[in-house]
Amino acid sequence: MTAAFASRVLTLFPEMFPGPLGLSVAGKALEAGLWSLEVVDIRDFARDKHRSVDDTPFGGGPGMVMRADILADAVDTVAARNGANDGGQPLIYFSPRGRMLDRSLVREVRDAGGATLICGRFEGVDERLLQARSIVEVSLGDFVLSGGEIAAYALLDAAVRLLPGVAGNEESLAEESFEQGLLEYPQYTRPRNWEGREVPAALLSGNHQEIRAWRLAEAERITRERRPDLWTRYMNRVEKAKVTS
Amino acid sequence: MTAAFASRVLTLFPEMFPGPLGLSVAGKALEAGLWSLEVVDIRDFARDKHRSVDDTPFGGGPGMVMRADILADAVDTVAARNGANDGGQPLIYFSPRGRMLDRSLVREVRDAGGATLICGRFEGVDERLLQARSIVEVSLGDFVLSGGEIAAYALLDAAVRLLPGVAGNEESLAEESFEQGLLEYPQYTRPRNWEGREVPAALLSGNHQEIRAWRLAEAERITRERRPDLWTRYMNRVEKAKVTS
Repeated sequence: MTAAFASRVLTLFPEMFPGPLGLSVAGKALEAGLWSLEVVDIRDFARDKHRSVDDTPFGGGPGMVMRADILADAVDTVAARNGANDGGQPLIYFSPRGRMLDRSLVREVRDAGGATLICGRFEGVDERLLQARSIVEVSLGDFVLSGGEIAAYALLDAAVRLLPGVAGNEESLAEESFEQGLLEYPQYTRPRNWEGREVPAALLSGNHQEIRAWRLAEAERITRERRPDLWTRYMNRVEKAKVTS
Repeated sequence: MTAAFASRVLTLFPEMFPGPLGLSVAGKALEAGLWSLEVVDIRDFARDKHRSVDDTPFGGGPGMVMRADILADAVDTVAARNGANDGGQPLIYFSPRGRMLDRSLVREVRDAGGATLICGRFEGVDERLLQARSIVEVSLGDFVLSGGEIAAYALLDAAVRLLPGVAGNEESLAEESFEQGLLEYPQYTRPRNWEGREVPAALLSGNHQEIRAWRLAEAERITRERRPDLWTRYMNRVEKAKVTS
């Protein structure tokens, strides 16, 4: 049986996987067969006895570049092995030059039933590989990591927790940040008074309408204060809804 | 001896650390004593025999919220234990509501000589903890993870590789994405012809000036095409440099 969500990761550090994805939420789902991860050691495709996968950059400069021919062998072998299963799934290379990893990309990968993830190291990969194999570059943010493996964790963890039966509570997913285009409202639990700080009265009212109103107002306030970009988009949507209703 | 970069991570999954940070670039630096990581199990601060750290949210709703009193105990104990070493280092909680993790935040943490990182799980932490302990919320991006641990990997890996002697080549750091306000230029290595695709002639010219000019033009092109936001900032800086020169 093939899992509903099947992904492959190409890496120079196969021992990094499943790593954190083998524990907690993603780990339980992996054990339950709700998703699968094939770990491919790029060095298995090297052509010399030193198992080298990189070489110096043309034009000079520091560092080493991962070879297009060796990576293409790895990508093509994995694609052939997975056949139809791989069809339509994105082929992703993690790079600061890429499309920002966000909720819409996570959903695309979830909806595609998985992805093939290439984790770079050193100065990156030969540009021709990216062009020749229609690889999508994806970035975890405006900072540089020592390799793509941590970005792969992020994408897979975020996608797997959206699979049915994984996060445990569909209602919980619907309430979290970004689902309504807003950041999440503040949460409070026992003790009711902590270091002289009280839980907001609305949350203790027992009045569901009042609680909903308080949470929406807080989510709106936090989004407006912290993320003008999300706030503008949210307001535009609210305005449109008014016009069409 | 205290490492030049000393961090602490508070988590419900202590077995996730050092994880990938114990391998590759960060792992070698950890072994060499160039940085250190104290892993704190939040459950050690629980007050019942079930070692519970969370409770249901006031006002109802799905999921569980991590308790302010237990987390504050963990934070205060770790701070007291580290004394002066902790002074001035940021206390970070990973949350989609936070300031985006980027190069400037990575440098702040590097310059502070480390950070204390709180990894949330479930529906997050009691809001009063964030206020009472001046915690900085940091986000890995506009998507939701099952916990803060993967964000902690990203921040620590990005900061550690900037420490002197870690990435191996200072020149390599200076050339990478964001350092000049531009995304990185394309890289090529052997073979010179691969699947009929040639390496750009400029890179084979042996003319250093021509190579520099080609790389700058490509970095500018890629930034302009992919990241209008970075491009605008870069152009403003270039304009200013013209005026003042």
